[in-house]
Amino acid sequence: MPAMSGFEDADTEETLTCFQVTVYHPNQEQNQVFQMLRFFNRERLSSMEVIKFGRSPNLCHYTFRDKQVSRVQFSLQPFKQFNSPVLSFEIKNLSKKTSLLVGNMELGYLNKMDLPGRCIVRFGEYQFLMEKEDGESLEYFETRFVLASRSLLEERHYGKPVPENGFSSSTLPTEMDENEY
Amino acid sequence: MPAMSGFEDADTEETLTCFQVTVYHPNQEQNQVFQMLRFFNRERLSSMEVIKFGRSPNLCHYTFRDKQVSRVQFSLQPFKQFNSPVLSFEIKNLSKKTSLLVGNMELGYLNKMDLPGRCIVRFGEYQFLMEKEDGESLEYFETRFVLASRSLLEERHYGKPVPENGFSSSTLPTEMDENEY
Repeated sequence: MPAMSGFEDADTEETLTCFQVTVYHPNQEQNQVFQMLRFFNRERLSSMEVIKFGRSPNLCHYTFRDKQVSRVQFSLQPFKQFNSPVLSFEIKNLSKKTSLLVGNMELGYLNKMDLPGRCIVRFGEYQFLMEKEDGESLEYFETRFVLASRSLLEERHYGKPVPENGFSSSTLPTEMDENEY
Repeated sequence: MPAMSGFEDADTEETLTCFQVTVYHPNQEQNQVFQMLRFFNRERLSSMEVIKFGRSPNLCHYTFRDKQVSRVQFSLQPFKQFNSPVLSFEIKNLSKKTSLLVGNMELGYLNKMDLPGRCIVRFGEYQFLMEKEDGESLEYFETRFVLASRSLLEERHYGKPVPENGFSSSTLPTEMDENEY
């Protein structure tokens, strides 16, 4: 049976690193700023790419429907740290007008930094909880968006406080605990 | 005279950071591996972009005509360091097969590092002397390619030895001395 053989002989699939972004904006319901995001959908992307976030659908992979957002607000690029077997991510502010807050670090135009495994990213009234769940593949990773119902800066959101500096190095209550950070 | 007024009222042009790449390959004459590069031409690029180098014209901005080169070999992205008023560049190895040597640092697949103002980058038999001449603009920069007639690893090439570690923090004999590194 060739179909079965194909299945049995195929390479073992590698798990993908999942980059999960929980988003919040105080006017998300009235203004539908996140209407272009497909929530809970996992999207597979190549590690060759740099993913841009902003207002312009021509320039960005993920867009916000809001004139207060720059055409390109920030970018995210996967990379591999020298001492790590898994993917990491770097964030760069591409807005000339607005600072990007990564934890308590303020990134001006073209400033960049490596993202910790879990942190809060903000610009204007936008809030993003960015969380990485490590996978085996280096060539591909996936993204997943979740809509928060209230501010990410409030304590005990999602059952777990985010420290005041916006970074968290503790583990999440999942099976991947040991390898995640 | 509207033409003159336009000229007189126009914003003062900002100088552009020039990223100069001197290239060398031992078979550059026989195999014409650099035939797709336009030497001595200055090309203006946006700081929004990530520039890819490799074999594939569909994926890369600058291409090498050589089957030993990966479809995408490495990328270069402009950014601004927190404590600097000028553009810097980060290099990332995108080849799964070949290491990228930046000075004496070996970058594996998806490893990245910030480039010093002057350094030698190598993969396979390819050699690149990458030199940054600072300009005022942050939004744009320019690239310029020069063809070397002999190996960049030989001493006193271009009147100035490149140290054994491949990095140079000393200044070049130009008017920009003070601000360049």
